Amino acid sequence: MILKAVLLGLEMGGKAVAIMNSQDAKRLGVLGQARIMIRAGKAEHTAIVDTSTDLLQPGHIGVCKKVWIGLGLMEGLDVEVDIAPFPASLLFIRNKLRGRKLVHDEILEIVEDTIAERLSDVEISAFVTALHNFGLDLDEATNLSLAMVKTGSTMKLDRQPIVDKHSIGGVPGDKTTLLVVPIIAACGLTIPKSSSRAITSPAGTADRAQVLMPVSLDVAEMQEAVEKTNGCIVWGGSVSLSPADDIFVKIEYPLSIDPLLLPSIMSKKKAVGANILVVDIPCGRGAKVKTIGDADLLAKDFMEIGRRLGMQVRCAVTYGEQPIGYAIGPSLEAREALNALMSHGDSSDIVEKATAIAGIILEMAGKSDGKRLATEAIRSGKAESKLREIIAAQGGNPGINPDDIAIGDKHFTVRSGRSGNLLWINNASVDNLARFLGCPGDPSAGILLHKKLGDVVNKDEPLFTIYAERSANLKRAIDNLEDFEIMGIGDRMEMLIHEVKERPVTEKSIALDR
Amino acid sequence: MILKAVLLGLEMGGKAVAIMNSQDAKRLGVLGQARIMIRAGKAEHTAIVDTSTDLLQPGHIGVCKKVWIGLGLMEGLDVEVDIAPFPASLLFIRNKLRGRKLVHDEILEIVEDTIAERLSDVEISAFVTALHNFGLDLDEATNLSLAMVKTGSTMKLDRQPIVDKHSIGGVPGDKTTLLVVPIIAACGLTIPKSSSRAITSPAGTADRAQVLMPVSLDVAEMQEAVEKTNGCIVWGGSVSLSPADDIFVKIEYPLSIDPLLLPSIMSKKKAVGANILVVDIPCGRGAKVKTIGDADLLAKDFMEIGRRLGMQVRCAVTYGEQPIGYAIGPSLEAREALNALMSHGDSSDIVEKATAIAGIILEMAGKSDGKRLATEAIRSGKAESKLREIIAAQGGNPGINPDDIAIGDKHFTVRSGRSGNLLWINNASVDNLARFLGCPGDPSAGILLHKKLGDVVNKDEPLFTIYAERSANLKRAIDNLEDFEIMGIGDRMEMLIHEVKERPVTEKSIALDR
Repeated sequence: MILKAVLLGLEMGGKAVAIMNSQDAKRLGVLGQARIMIRAGKAEHTAIVDTSTDLLQPGHIGVCKKVWIGLGLMEGLDVEVDIAPFPASLLFIRNKLRGRKLVHDEILEIVEDTIAERLSDVEISAFVTALHNFGLDLDEATNLSLAMVKTGSTMKLDRQPIVDKHSIGGVPGDKTTLLVVPIIAACGLTIPKSSSRAITSPAGTADRAQVLMPVSLDVAEMQEAVEKTNGCIVWGGSVSLSPADDIFVKIEYPLSIDPLLLPSIMSKKKAVGANILVVDIPCGRGAKVKTIGDADLLAKDFMEIGRRLGMQVRCAVTYGEQPIGYAIGPSLEAREALNALMSHGDSSDIVEKATAIAGIILEMAGKSDGKRLATEAIRSGKAESKLREIIAAQGGNPGINPDDIAIGDKHFTVRSGRSGNLLWINNASVDNLARFLGCPGDPSAGILLHKKLGDVVNKDEPLFTIYAERSANLKRAIDNLEDFEIMGIGDRMEMLIHEVKERPVTEKSIALDR
Repeated sequence: MILKAVLLGLEMGGKAVAIMNSQDAKRLGVLGQARIMIRAGKAEHTAIVDTSTDLLQPGHIGVCKKVWIGLGLMEGLDVEVDIAPFPASLLFIRNKLRGRKLVHDEILEIVEDTIAERLSDVEISAFVTALHNFGLDLDEATNLSLAMVKTGSTMKLDRQPIVDKHSIGGVPGDKTTLLVVPIIAACGLTIPKSSSRAITSPAGTADRAQVLMPVSLDVAEMQEAVEKTNGCIVWGGSVSLSPADDIFVKIEYPLSIDPLLLPSIMSKKKAVGANILVVDIPCGRGAKVKTIGDADLLAKDFMEIGRRLGMQVRCAVTYGEQPIGYAIGPSLEAREALNALMSHGDSSDIVEKATAIAGIILEMAGKSDGKRLATEAIRSGKAESKLREIIAAQGGNPGINPDDIAIGDKHFTVRSGRSGNLLWINNASVDNLARFLGCPGDPSAGILLHKKLGDVVNKDEPLFTIYAERSANLKRAIDNLEDFEIMGIGDRMEMLIHEVKERPVTEKSIALDR
């Protein structure tokens, strides 16, 4: 069917969308939400079509900007419109639905068709669900990594080695990367770090870094920053290392599954050319991985896929039963990280975790006594100077001080109703409360803990303070505080955790941030 | 967020859709294709939102007709717009993704939220995929049937017993229902038959019946026809017996899976109040079920779910290795069925299959010697008269003759290149060729076989004739005839079926029609 093209001002979340008059659609044999193929000359583009009785005259087709540019259209130009055929990759997905293993070429085609929007949400969702249900074997995970690398941007740095670190996430307040990158760069190694924004958590590393400096760099700007300073902390979405993963993760999010965890992480490391990688696997009841045995199994897979991709990989199984440090929320965490570097490492578990991970990286790169070297980089102030260099290279203010970072001026402190010991902190509740307060959209909202596991608590002592940018959010949080079971105070030997009186509703979900 | 409502002329395939100005959407924190909750007074409706820079002014929200009516809106009325919360049913789907069994209330909530569009395509697709991967146990299948009955229309007929038949489909040319319904009704039993249109086949029973009479009746009209004549053959879509299944089947179609086969069929039988049911399970290499052992296993499940729903169920495992009768395509099949009734049962496998199934039903209802009774109903002309009564009751022409049914006037006959025996007919290829010729959209397109399995074939003898309404379709089919391997002619003792020279591409798919 030949129709005249009209540019539509619809944005549709970046999807390729077209609108046809209902009569034309009926003649073509499509209903709303079907896929059509639009051809202009030799160019062709798949789009999801919707129908309208009045937005478009018969004989016309409205297309969104993405398709308009993709096809090089001009107002009133004739385009040929057909029902889009099922892509061959759908046959491969159907095989996976039957439990069959997918090979390299099949996986590549699925990833390519996902990006080109030749596969629908229904089909991608079935693919992701089948990967979750049947699992990916190491061949499939490796091939998915390779397909994501091939279909994304890559970086070529003219140095060796290139090191990287990644956390599988799931623990609130984990600002380790803000310390590891400057430590490693200060020690002379190259670490081109890309991070994600929060998806289900109150802050991703990109959200935390953005408090200190711009993070939406493209690949060329990222490369420039790294060449200048040995390091960077940028948002992975803007460098477009894996456009396919950006689509997959949106499917995984409502389903609260992440079968693509390994390929997603490994592809992004491969894309920046990393050959030394440490993967942080937080472990514990409130973390993604509950037991050390499971963490070791996951570590084995990371190491094997790394080997196949030409990367030396070690994993750090870390303590994940409570938040890292005391601050949760982008601004509070950025401030805590900067303080940790400026107070030259006097504080707590953040420095402990960062130097442990940096130490492993340094030793993998051939240096001896890594943890001492990392600790020294903080103590000497070199890591702090390096962070300021990176801030400057990414276009931020290198003179920034912790007190310059604004924190939500609406706040409320929760005090203990009894004396005892802090027996548990619920990671998921901490996340939920911080998001309730406005994180990550309101960066200066968040939570500041005053006590951590094992601390002695007296009656009426402050347990934590909540911060918000908007009064309504603070009020709502205070009104609902009892629903968030953040901390448990009790006697050290208290054995009863929880009494089950009626059939419990399971709200099992995972923290999906990568 | 408070916005002014505007009615949009978007149809969106019957989905609930809204469009917001991009600025408003950003302020609300939604991207395109997100779900929002729109409230007007006490009414609320979920919708998928898209964003536009120019179709709508800030402060306004455009909604499609479905939402407009659902909320009882008027132009310029204020509505409250929020991000839609995840429905609780999504938590149940997440559990199923982890392999957990779902209970009655959970399944009901998933089905209700599917119909109310509170679940997205991504989420429904994951649910259907998980059902496919983990399988449904009998409790889940029963509860899905009950949930579909509860959320659909039902019929209350003031008679006993109410009988029904259903085929799981998958064999071309299966016009058995067009004979069984009049036979049963002529024998004095009540059979309120609803059938599907073709989804992946060239003709569904509703498509076949529509050649003879109107089939888009609502529940009241259906009931009236049955009360008048003891039977009917209507399209299930118009009586809306299971609106949820209409959504599920659209998800299953691209994925070529049908985990909902049992609950879908059983719910529709329960909805019309059937208490005696025969399920036809065609069996053979070219059918859905390949072996008699598998057919028996499926039969067991049908019978057990029937028992739980208060229905007496028997299954007929039937020969499915070739098309039923000689005609494929709505008009050709309607003509063949009418001829079979009018020639008083002189012909072939159609009458054999119809009387076998009708015979089982009659015996389940307490009559003895069912098959003989059924055969007698045809021989005496009572079944033909009954079909004409039903045609009249549904608003068709009761005097219709086989020759009144137009067949595509573009045709071409394929002749045998050699002498031998007809060794095989490929059901899937027959389906594909018939669809290629225009079925089911062009009802008078189709295929007429001249030979069936075991027939002796001489060189140059006609094998089959293809019919089309449009010359372009006929030409395209003739040009591509070699790609459709319809029949195999060979020596009776020929042992080599097929030589595999290169890696074959598997295009495994199922016939999805119910």
